[in-house]
Amino acid sequence: MKTRIIGVDPGSRITGYGVIDSDGQNLQLVEAGCIRTPSDSFPARLKYLFEGISEVCRQHQPTLAAVEEIFYARNVKSALQLGQARGAILLALLNCNCEVFEYSALQVKNAITGYGGAEKGQLRRMIEMMVKADFSNAKLDVTDALGLAITHVHVSQFQSKLV
Amino acid sequence: MKTRIIGVDPGSRITGYGVIDSDGQNLQLVEAGCIRTPSDSFPARLKYLFEGISEVCRQHQPTLAAVEEIFYARNVKSALQLGQARGAILLALLNCNCEVFEYSALQVKNAITGYGGAEKGQLRRMIEMMVKADFSNAKLDVTDALGLAITHVHVSQFQSKLV
Repeated sequence: MKTRIIGVDPGSRITGYGVIDSDGQNLQLVEAGCIRTPSDSFPARLKYLFEGISEVCRQHQPTLAAVEEIFYARNVKSALQLGQARGAILLALLNCNCEVFEYSALQVKNAITGYGGAEKGQLRRMIEMMVKADFSNAKLDVTDALGLAITHVHVSQFQSKLV
Repeated sequence: MKTRIIGVDPGSRITGYGVIDSDGQNLQLVEAGCIRTPSDSFPARLKYLFEGISEVCRQHQPTLAAVEEIFYARNVKSALQLGQARGAILLALLNCNCEVFEYSALQVKNAITGYGGAEKGQLRRMIEMMVKADFSNAKLDVTDALGLAITHVHVSQFQSKLV
């Protein structure tokens, strides 16, 4: 059975997203990109981000979502901003009836490279190979988002083998 | 002309809200209360909070919203949590077509007691007098939310006098 998953790497300025299909054996890229929030009032930027993720969900109808779990930020001020952006993204996904899963950056590195200390560039190249696409001109946020979606596929396959 | 304003004091566990009407001369209490998010997964709690604020807006149709501006939190972790809750609240208000204004706790104290160093209890008693209601058994979040709505009335009256 084919499952459609959206991965989202939240940011208050740039949010990466990537949609893939998985049939348990193969991964297929559906769409990936990023949402850049305009320089506007903070509530207006949140609304833009919410609408952007909602639009991707309306178009591609994913049923599962993998969102980066965030534990740290430069300081309390940026944590508050990033938190609000992440809240907007989670709500957009929940309102589109996605089941939401959360993975840390370390879990993504482990799932994809098998090594928690992997570099950003190495992670990107492995993700490009997995979805058979070239993202060398895209922001890292885009491949990070795809990495989250792929991580969910790996984790759920591993869990289903345990049952 | 009568204006209906909702004030919201965001919290990841307890969010206070208060709806008032203002005709430029008198304030009238419409409803005030708080939303306690259940012990559930974090995305489910965000959704609950979003639905709760959306329901209050659907019921009372405020056109303006005053939300507490937050600058600090105990640490980065609680800032991330509080940020996500605040993001959910802002989106609920924006989706219900409220124009959103942000005020700090200091601005509320100044607007209501004329004194930035006012104590919580003193602030509550003044708010109770302004809306002619007794909130001695309610959480402070409820009167804080009403304080935000009243602050918006004061600030906008002051601004319109300047024009």
